[in-house]
Amino acid sequence: MSKESDLIAAMRKLALHPAARGLTDDCAVLPFGGETLVLTHDMMVEGVHWLPGQDMADVAWKLVATNLSDLAAKGAEPVGVLLGFTLGEEDTRFVAGLGEALQAFGVPLLGGDTVSGNGPRSLGLTALGRATCSPVPSRSGAKVGDTLWLTGPVGAAMLGFEALRDGTGRDSTTFRRPLPRLAEGRTLAPLATAMMDVSDGLLIDAARMAQASGVTFAIASESVPFPAALPDSRRDDAMRWGDDYELLFTLPPGLPAPVAALRIGVAQAATSSPVIIDGAVPHGNLGYMHD
Amino acid sequence: MSKESDLIAAMRKLALHPAARGLTDDCAVLPFGGETLVLTHDMMVEGVHWLPGQDMADVAWKLVATNLSDLAAKGAEPVGVLLGFTLGEEDTRFVAGLGEALQAFGVPLLGGDTVSGNGPRSLGLTALGRATCSPVPSRSGAKVGDTLWLTGPVGAAMLGFEALRDGTGRDSTTFRRPLPRLAEGRTLAPLATAMMDVSDGLLIDAARMAQASGVTFAIASESVPFPAALPDSRRDDAMRWGDDYELLFTLPPGLPAPVAALRIGVAQAATSSPVIIDGAVPHGNLGYMHD
Repeated sequence: MSKESDLIAAMRKLALHPAARGLTDDCAVLPFGGETLVLTHDMMVEGVHWLPGQDMADVAWKLVATNLSDLAAKGAEPVGVLLGFTLGEEDTRFVAGLGEALQAFGVPLLGGDTVSGNGPRSLGLTALGRATCSPVPSRSGAKVGDTLWLTGPVGAAMLGFEALRDGTGRDSTTFRRPLPRLAEGRTLAPLATAMMDVSDGLLIDAARMAQASGVTFAIASESVPFPAALPDSRRDDAMRWGDDYELLFTLPPGLPAPVAALRIGVAQAATSSPVIIDGAVPHGNLGYMHD
Repeated sequence: MSKESDLIAAMRKLALHPAARGLTDDCAVLPFGGETLVLTHDMMVEGVHWLPGQDMADVAWKLVATNLSDLAAKGAEPVGVLLGFTLGEEDTRFVAGLGEALQAFGVPLLGGDTVSGNGPRSLGLTALGRATCSPVPSRSGAKVGDTLWLTGPVGAAMLGFEALRDGTGRDSTTFRRPLPRLAEGRTLAPLATAMMDVSDGLLIDAARMAQASGVTFAIASESVPFPAALPDSRRDDAMRWGDDYELLFTLPPGLPAPVAALRIGVAQAATSSPVIIDGAVPHGNLGYMHD
């Protein structure tokens, strides 16, 4: 058991309120004032979540986009964000990128805190949303026979990261400026039996949804969408890399997807492996493992 | 102008939504459903907000208490918190202290994020509250003639910090485990013309309230409450040290305080100095200056 796993297990004992969803979902879901609040808080740390020297405007964009992606997975309409900011280099660029993201997604900055610090910078964002349907989708509703879908390719962020890291000059937009699938999430929320965003990798996130739902997902790799630029030899890597922020969701048998999406598998009775690829248990790490 | 001031000025241009209150208040105040959300996000950084080697249970407590103190200043009832946590030493102690604080204040952990990082740790907490009266008090409502009050002494946290730093063995509880004035805030909220919590120091926070309200506060130092253990020679220091988390508020002329509090001054027409002590302009830094 990793250190973070131990800690999260201890925290879960403090998070018994039903709104916390046992800390196993992308968001907290809290009734308030006759409506339902959807809440998430994600952090980014220098050297872990972004490359040293990366444009801080891109970092700001990604901080906003990844939190809004959690709201998208709940079908929630963004209401506002609070920012936890550690001062450092390129703060003007950060504010510029923050403004671009807030404008692009139509969400206001409501508050937050700014501190000075030494060493690697740490950023946090809390995003608030308004649920648009009830119940709010979770990871745990997939049933045997449900179909498994993905709103777009995986692997583009991996290629973008490598281009940026290696300075190849190839396009890195998908890694730097992800787009939360807010409209798709809202359309899917009343229909999907389970939904989440793919942040840590398709296989690991599918495994998490399978475990939360008590099923096994059988995925056909030939159905998984990849970017055109991805070499065939990298398809396995692409399924284990995160940061694409597509939505992964299940629909009842026979229901077509109401948004652009590809059917990549089906929910079967649970086996010892929560995910099966082309009939076999995938080996090795399924994706980004928090340590 | 300090670096943080420049940055906050730039952020204010992004925070034009009325709920953000221009980023000049302790909390964002957002209508949601048929009620009003009160939102705050405060950070703590190792070496800045706590001493290296300090018990992480106390750090957790303080992180919760300082955020709830912002809610107290709005008279809000706490609804839940989201935690941004950087892994490090003594995580078990942190979780223990977090649990103690959440239980003491009756507030649930709703969610958050945990990351690994190197270097000084950074913690963030978002606290959500429910407004209990309308309008929700701000810093900006004090009028000329209003009386200025404080719910308790300033300086105990300073003495506690020094005891801890110097290892004297004297009591450091006030510094380590502050108590947000939640009950007092709720009682005061419908009556106070302005209210805030004293986090950075009595003089600087009074100056901020005065500037937000467009008045000058004339404070009589002999009326300011200090802890019994404070030497007379440290009174000036105590008025410039934060971390006590008492509530500072104004009432209309003639209205007695409905909670235990001391009257320390009066709002006068604005002068070039937002705060006057015993008839004179205070010299030097008024409190903890964010840099």
